[in-house]
Amino acid sequence: MTAEVASTDPRTGQVVETVAHEFTPAEVDARCRTAAAAAAALDAAGPAGRARMLRAMADELEADADAIVALADRESALGSSRLRGELARSSFQLRLFAGVLDDGGYLGVIIDHADPDAAPVPCPDLRRMLAPLGPVAVFGASNFPLAFSVPGGDTASALAAGCPVIVKAHPAHPATAQRCAQVLRAGAAAAGISTDVLGLVHGSQAGADLVRHPAIRAVGFTGSPGGGRALFDLASARPDPIPFHGELGSLNPVVVTAAAAAERADEIAAGLLASYTNGVGQFCTKPGLVFVPAGASGRRIRDGLASGTRDYNPTAMLAKRIRDAYRAGADQRAMLPGVDVLAESAAPDGTGFLAPARLLGVPAHVLRDDAVRTTLFDECFGPLMVVVAYTDEAQLTELLAQLPGSLTATVHAGAGETPTAQLEVLRQRAGRIVWNGYPTGVAVTWATQHGGPYPSTTDSRSTSVGATAIERWLRPIAYQSTPDAMLPPALQEANPWRLPRRVDGVLEMP
Amino acid sequence: MTAEVASTDPRTGQVVETVAHEFTPAEVDARCRTAAAAAAALDAAGPAGRARMLRAMADELEADADAIVALADRESALGSSRLRGELARSSFQLRLFAGVLDDGGYLGVIIDHADPDAAPVPCPDLRRMLAPLGPVAVFGASNFPLAFSVPGGDTASALAAGCPVIVKAHPAHPATAQRCAQVLRAGAAAAGISTDVLGLVHGSQAGADLVRHPAIRAVGFTGSPGGGRALFDLASARPDPIPFHGELGSLNPVVVTAAAAAERADEIAAGLLASYTNGVGQFCTKPGLVFVPAGASGRRIRDGLASGTRDYNPTAMLAKRIRDAYRAGADQRAMLPGVDVLAESAAPDGTGFLAPARLLGVPAHVLRDDAVRTTLFDECFGPLMVVVAYTDEAQLTELLAQLPGSLTATVHAGAGETPTAQLEVLRQRAGRIVWNGYPTGVAVTWATQHGGPYPSTTDSRSTSVGATAIERWLRPIAYQSTPDAMLPPALQEANPWRLPRRVDGVLEMP
Repeated sequence: MTAEVASTDPRTGQVVETVAHEFTPAEVDARCRTAAAAAAALDAAGPAGRARMLRAMADELEADADAIVALADRESALGSSRLRGELARSSFQLRLFAGVLDDGGYLGVIIDHADPDAAPVPCPDLRRMLAPLGPVAVFGASNFPLAFSVPGGDTASALAAGCPVIVKAHPAHPATAQRCAQVLRAGAAAAGISTDVLGLVHGSQAGADLVRHPAIRAVGFTGSPGGGRALFDLASARPDPIPFHGELGSLNPVVVTAAAAAERADEIAAGLLASYTNGVGQFCTKPGLVFVPAGASGRRIRDGLASGTRDYNPTAMLAKRIRDAYRAGADQRAMLPGVDVLAESAAPDGTGFLAPARLLGVPAHVLRDDAVRTTLFDECFGPLMVVVAYTDEAQLTELLAQLPGSLTATVHAGAGETPTAQLEVLRQRAGRIVWNGYPTGVAVTWATQHGGPYPSTTDSRSTSVGATAIERWLRPIAYQSTPDAMLPPALQEANPWRLPRRVDGVLEMP
Repeated sequence: MTAEVASTDPRTGQVVETVAHEFTPAEVDARCRTAAAAAAALDAAGPAGRARMLRAMADELEADADAIVALADRESALGSSRLRGELARSSFQLRLFAGVLDDGGYLGVIIDHADPDAAPVPCPDLRRMLAPLGPVAVFGASNFPLAFSVPGGDTASALAAGCPVIVKAHPAHPATAQRCAQVLRAGAAAAGISTDVLGLVHGSQAGADLVRHPAIRAVGFTGSPGGGRALFDLASARPDPIPFHGELGSLNPVVVTAAAAAERADEIAAGLLASYTNGVGQFCTKPGLVFVPAGASGRRIRDGLASGTRDYNPTAMLAKRIRDAYRAGADQRAMLPGVDVLAESAAPDGTGFLAPARLLGVPAHVLRDDAVRTTLFDECFGPLMVVVAYTDEAQLTELLAQLPGSLTATVHAGAGETPTAQLEVLRQRAGRIVWNGYPTGVAVTWATQHGGPYPSTTDSRSTSVGATAIERWLRPIAYQSTPDAMLPPALQEANPWRLPRRVDGVLEMP
């Protein structure tokens, strides 16, 4: 007997229904074989066939929006407004990758014609393109039941690349996962592609089995540092190691210069408050630490944040385990020597997964203590932010150099100010620099970078959001002296797919 | 006291001189700190400054060619003609990457202007480019004392990317490594860049220390499966795992169709003989296994190979350890049940690191035995090739599906023949498909792909040869809503570096 997978309502803490059972190793194996068998046809469908499929999936998702949003809200307590936005983002992402396929530049086609006179040696005809890695395992995230789960960016980008996907459902929203998987499969069928390109498994052990399965060629993960590192280690320890794209935890530091604080303390306080409490602080880009100048304008930011924090009414967190971990992390930080609890929100009553928001404050010099600094420089997932008061730029820059890797780093500067030294240090520690803004609210565009140095991700060379997320699931293959008829269409001389290409060293538009 | 590093002549087996000592952990640490301190200036030099540096390094290398080739020949026994070619290849590679920097497309610039009306949400101005990872450790290869060692492709591509390099010298050619490091540093100085961008360490433990050092951000390795996997495991087990680009071992299978064998048996036999014995079989792309049809034309290929093998006069192998491993591997394979020794070359006399070439034969059905197949499908580094006689296409395709990952896979087909099924299977197992040719002799161009599925490399998504090798040492970084004056030149609106860019979704030439 395997364990049942229950759907729980975070607002009540009660189990609503049993939706599945945890997958046995044999069941995981069967899913992987099915996915592997579907790989060749998905690749052969070509960019055009897969673009049709992704658009059909987006259509199906929107057609089923009411039911999906209701289920996701019941399982996440994120509210239907936010979840409608998330569904819109998910269908937008599916269509964005359809556009990436239409464009075709992602194939990275490079053609070098034979050059018998080349020095130092003659060169044969060589043609290079990117090809799908094979079946991909995707681990759904707790905090985005749609946009980083079954119909999320990992799935969309992997399917776009031509890789079948098996999602390991997050235990916080198994019913949403089941429904979304059905919907995506319906989209595949509508486009004439096998529904086997999208599979779903439940259970923690099933997830580990997936990462170890020979048919799985890469992994996308969004979740906790502990769980993510354990799976990364499994992927790396395989007889044949596979790429593991894990987004683990991110501090997302914010620097407010003295000039910025003097110019617009209230505006910055209001922006930071919204950014750190939004979605009950359950965003991977939540600002967890803000450096403000010691002195009056810094105090004004701090006081604005404290006042807003006291007035904040948190809703339920996503799951009991997440709420409990947040409480433990918040208490651990509050008890550190030299750290003050500047404010705490009302602690809501009820049987749901509730916890108060908390604002901590600490003078910069306290962070010279390794234990204090290490703990405060570690993400606390949930509605908590630490305000660090620095006395001068030298102290600030020294602290910035000790920051861990983050998805984002934010600078608030004064009008015309150019904090070059701080920006240079932050650039080494983040994947996205935010100027005079707030890190939450990740735009999904061609230029998006959502990935940064460890521990924010296990592979800073990639992104899990935006058009270039497709690159994670591809590998190059070159053909030497191969007759045109035996080449994939992408490499044929006549360029039947009208792709941008680099030919004999020169970039060419179709 | 640390162990001395001796330079040995493979033709005599004698130590010629002591050139260095194995680095202590403190010395490795010092080298890493020096490299890290040089990183910012190397990045700030920009593509133009680094292009000048790479060209100066190529000039210095050529100016010192006589001395370098003499040293490398004394330490590798590869012969001055081959080594002059290798030096030409090395300086060509340095200049190729200078050209990659001139082009600038490698920076992958993507700009999305702010779009307040975007759906589902407004988009801020986002600008994405690739930036250097930081100091890179490069492990020199035994079999290319120049082109895959200190002045090789890993070094050239990492420096081009803006990453300082510390090379761990191969113990078979420490004096060559020392001299080449001096020459490259002279090139850096000539271009006005710190000589600290190129460091060198000696010793196996020093190599491991390098991979574990916090300042090292990525590793390039060419060498044995055992050594490479051990270092890959170290890199993956770090508190902050780093990318490890290892090229380990490759079988490089060759398929000869019945039609090809019937058309040109003698030509194929001669080509394969040259390819597998070239450089005493010490190429990563050496064809280790060839499938020929059972029957007369296949026998003609086999007999041609056998006759050529008997007449072959091997020169000394690179090192004692390599020769000993080759002998052991060749003997292990010869003793497998059902495997015949079709031919062996003269076993040269002398005190050098000598060993005979060996041609093995086996009927395809014998490979149904897991132990036999596993051993014969594993690379034997040195002048050994296995001829597998297949009876029909079904048997051939079944065997191809069991092949391990390789750098290359080669097909010899008859005129007008289209062996689509075989090509499709091979495509899944290799990084480069060679048509009617031979896998040795890797061209260095924009379209080159020298990397394939495990175990041929630890990361099939990259290449260690060709223009795109630079991608291994870069990570994306995005700037959000950042004033033009605070942006790196590559991202500024006016495009001062005249880079190809994708702007608002559309590829633009400068």
